[in-house]
Amino acid sequence: VSPGLGIDVGGTKILAVVADDAGRIVAERRVPTPTGFAPLVDALAQIASELMLEEPAPQGAGIGIAGMVDLAGTVVYSPNLPGLRDAAIGEALAARLGVPVRVDNDANLAALAEATRGGGVGYEQVLAITFGTGVGGGLVVGGEVMRGAHGFFGEVGHFVVDRDGPMCACGHRGHWEAIASGTALGAMARTLVSSGRGAGIAAAAGGDEVAGEHVGVAAAAGDRDALELLERYAANVAVGLASLCNILDPDAVVIGGGVADLGELLMEPLRVAFDAELEGVDHRPDIALRFAALGGQATAIGAAILAGAPR
Amino acid sequence: VSPGLGIDVGGTKILAVVADDAGRIVAERRVPTPTGFAPLVDALAQIASELMLEEPAPQGAGIGIAGMVDLAGTVVYSPNLPGLRDAAIGEALAARLGVPVRVDNDANLAALAEATRGGGVGYEQVLAITFGTGVGGGLVVGGEVMRGAHGFFGEVGHFVVDRDGPMCACGHRGHWEAIASGTALGAMARTLVSSGRGAGIAAAAGGDEVAGEHVGVAAAAGDRDALELLERYAANVAVGLASLCNILDPDAVVIGGGVADLGELLMEPLRVAFDAELEGVDHRPDIALRFAALGGQATAIGAAILAGAPR
Repeated sequence: VSPGLGIDVGGTKILAVVADDAGRIVAERRVPTPTGFAPLVDALAQIASELMLEEPAPQGAGIGIAGMVDLAGTVVYSPNLPGLRDAAIGEALAARLGVPVRVDNDANLAALAEATRGGGVGYEQVLAITFGTGVGGGLVVGGEVMRGAHGFFGEVGHFVVDRDGPMCACGHRGHWEAIASGTALGAMARTLVSSGRGAGIAAAAGGDEVAGEHVGVAAAAGDRDALELLERYAANVAVGLASLCNILDPDAVVIGGGVADLGELLMEPLRVAFDAELEGVDHRPDIALRFAALGGQATAIGAAILAGAPR
Repeated sequence: VSPGLGIDVGGTKILAVVADDAGRIVAERRVPTPTGFAPLVDALAQIASELMLEEPAPQGAGIGIAGMVDLAGTVVYSPNLPGLRDAAIGEALAARLGVPVRVDNDANLAALAEATRGGGVGYEQVLAITFGTGVGGGLVVGGEVMRGAHGFFGEVGHFVVDRDGPMCACGHRGHWEAIASGTALGAMARTLVSSGRGAGIAAAAGGDEVAGEHVGVAAAAGDRDALELLERYAANVAVGLASLCNILDPDAVVIGGGVADLGELLMEPLRVAFDAELEGVDHRPDIALRFAALGGQATAIGAAILAGAPR
């Protein structure tokens, strides 16, 4: 299999990479994301053409998009890229590059990369989830991303865990994302500090707006409020994670996104809360909980893997 | 493919059938479920031996068990059949019958039957769910039941939709089953009647303990309290069903169990609530909602299909 060209189209920036079979990046480019379909295709064609000059030349390209991508690779809808509505972006780019172009959801491709080249290596059925601004993920079975009947399998941030809970960014109440994202951790920390507690967290922020990373700094220093907050956040993560595992029965879960930087400060309470929520835990093999290994480049690497995958 | 012998082992009774390729039952036997592993194997061998005399003779048998069944067909744990713990019941029966015996979870086999011979015929990826004493189901993709990494894929009643909600029979708080099962509908009706409302429901019960079916009778007669209760129950069903569809992206959902007898009284408010909860509903094809077609024989028919499936 020749190395593929993988492109992660985010709301603000585009990351394009050429990856080798091991998932290592051998070349990359970054540009801002332009607005609108035609300017985006122009930018992608430009950046891709440069990377097609690498040796050996990529024989295909993959694109990851934050949005709903159907089985034909059409971007049905993207909240962060409003110019893409029923957009056949893969066909448009293929016509410019002269190689096949495949398109999938960014979270699916990050999951593909983590499952096969990152934190999930060695496991057969991997649920890989990124906890960042939102919560996204995918289920990879035997090296293939599950796509569902229409391409929308694995909207793992968007199921109800708390009917009376906070609104989700998607407009539905009580979704897991609304209590488990990195954004939610930051909001929990700001609420705590506003209430007059969490002095260690506020100190870690040093005048900047309090965010999830400051909880980690304070917790690492032994701050009790920070540790308690992390325990509450870990319970929020566990309630959805165990629910997903009851439904999907993976053998490993790979946890990525900013909150993965919390390391054992998160993993220790998470493992306890997860085991307490998992169905039949006394009668079943453990589900491995692992951290992601590919960082913010996972989607681009996954797109490169998709580009080189047999069709 | 020769017809298979399918056996549904429930907590109180065993139903064994021989089914033809269309899933029609051509012979059946019912006996009470004995307690303990050896008596159960004896009873299964007896009932199966009788049905093996049918022409053409079944070339294999399938068993559906209410419990956790691993990929090897071992019954790891069954709350309703406490004598089965790490029980290789398929091997034991195969040794007695001289034909291969395969074992799966009862809800998985009911889903297999409904997806391929019942309410889901014509769809590629079918989520089939039974709303009875509990809530169980399975996802059938291209005619095959998804099993997950360990055999436990699709514990669809057991994910959290309401963290602060009622306890589930499994011992975890807030699971969908606790608010969406037929049992839950009956409990909602009894609570209403106890509060002094729901006179039409109480009248339909006519002195018997109020149950879900009485809500249907009263609602069919236009009783306003019953119709309101069904709307609340439909919302309980919808919150979990839309969540599952956001995760699993089927093209059809098949709804079985006692509550399916409610027909359009349930389906009408359910469709409205489901569409309101489904992610990206304005940008995606409809997910079909259908009623089950095989009733209480679905698991036995699914076991017969499993018996005849290629390995």
